Amino acid sequence: MMKIDVLSIFPEMFSGVLGHSILKKAEEKQAVSYQVVNFRDFADNRHQTVDDYPYGGGAGMVLKPQPIFDAVENLVQKAEGKKPRVVLMCPQGERYTQKKAEELSQEEHLIFICGHYEGYDERIREHLITDEISIGDYVLTGGELGAMVVIDSVVRLLPGVLGSEESHIQDSFSTGLLEHPHYTRPADFRGMKVPDVLVSGNHRLIEEWRKKESLRRTHLRRPDLLEEIELPSDMKKLLAEIRNQSE
Amino acid sequence: MMKIDVLSIFPEMFSGVLGHSILKKAEEKQAVSYQVVNFRDFADNRHQTVDDYPYGGGAGMVLKPQPIFDAVENLVQKAEGKKPRVVLMCPQGERYTQKKAEELSQEEHLIFICGHYEGYDERIREHLITDEISIGDYVLTGGELGAMVVIDSVVRLLPGVLGSEESHIQDSFSTGLLEHPHYTRPADFRGMKVPDVLVSGNHRLIEEWRKKESLRRTHLRRPDLLEEIELPSDMKKLLAEIRNQSE
Repeated sequence: MMKIDVLSIFPEMFSGVLGHSILKKAEEKQAVSYQVVNFRDFADNRHQTVDDYPYGGGAGMVLKPQPIFDAVENLVQKAEGKKPRVVLMCPQGERYTQKKAEELSQEEHLIFICGHYEGYDERIREHLITDEISIGDYVLTGGELGAMVVIDSVVRLLPGVLGSEESHIQDSFSTGLLEHPHYTRPADFRGMKVPDVLVSGNHRLIEEWRKKESLRRTHLRRPDLLEEIELPSDMKKLLAEIRNQSE
Repeated sequence: MMKIDVLSIFPEMFSGVLGHSILKKAEEKQAVSYQVVNFRDFADNRHQTVDDYPYGGGAGMVLKPQPIFDAVENLVQKAEGKKPRVVLMCPQGERYTQKKAEELSQEEHLIFICGHYEGYDERIREHLITDEISIGDYVLTGGELGAMVVIDSVVRLLPGVLGSEESHIQDSFSTGLLEHPHYTRPADFRGMKVPDVLVSGNHRLIEEWRKKESLRRTHLRRPDLLEEIELPSDMKKLLAEIRNQSE
């Protein structure tokens, strides 16, 4: 069973996400256990402060090393010898990808450190953590949402977590291409119709339409993805047709 | 006041994130109001199903157009003439950036549509929405976390939301560079020391150290960011020094 610990001074933020849907089911199936720890509880000063002014001056506050070091060491001790990955959520981190999700899903113990509109004392970076992750090039008020995103993407990969219904979704970043369009009933919704080929019953044509539309969407929206994969020859031909049409 | 509506079949997922910290304060300050709507309530069929099998066969389910069209139209009607941005959260969408956060923060009314391990009927994409957003190249179990990420990044930009303490954080993606390291007390934590320059009291040297470390981190971790900005001449010189050192 994977063990996931989260350090945050806003532990209540996590209840909605960890307590519903697939993340909750995963815990019920004993594929994972979650613990959210308020690292303020580890502050050894009288007022339980977790931040302080930056050396060298300037605006903004910096998270002190002591509460976070002590909290992580406490969790490591309790884990009895399993060596955890200690992940710092921060905008300076490695950009998160599906490949990294797959890598983390192989671990037994993950610890996430979430700051909240403050910097981290650099000694946390240099001496305590194993990974720094950023979920994207945008500014959030804290690391909590980033940790939830990473947890969600990792837990769904654990064995037995997804039922057959959920797992059949074609993962855009597993095939390397964006998904083709989907349609369901009714065939005519307020005059908007389903493409004829999908109701034709001709499976060869449906398969070809789907491949082509998947390629077309990728070509139009994320041409960078096409440069990263080697297409089979039939798809290369379809892609050439699409490129001709859009010129 | 900005109005944010979210459509999801897991509305309970949002309480922890919207009900704490800055997103909650923003609502208390009347900078924003949130509403999370279960679009299952709009399903006009007896069993309140929101999904159905895909035309053309294949595994996985597809979200039906009717409940989502009706839910959005209901929200638009209630908003009395303000034209909303209707944002579909999906892996095929435009990659989310800080620039898009700034753009969305200018709007009066945002509606987010969150699917959950299912495809969307393509007619939703073609006829109902204004934007498709993906928060990154990784697979999540649903659009809910993506919507929370976008909401967090947008709401913190609304006037009056961030206090002076929070707003002073140097936003990595506003300056175009990654942040320099931060340190706070104690100067010696278990033998790990703060760099001498930061306790020197020499503000000119501190400023130069910070610029250089900011450039160094960006050079080492995100060289792509350096290609997108025009550096002032003193920073160009520092960058040249860093490049020489790391060769």
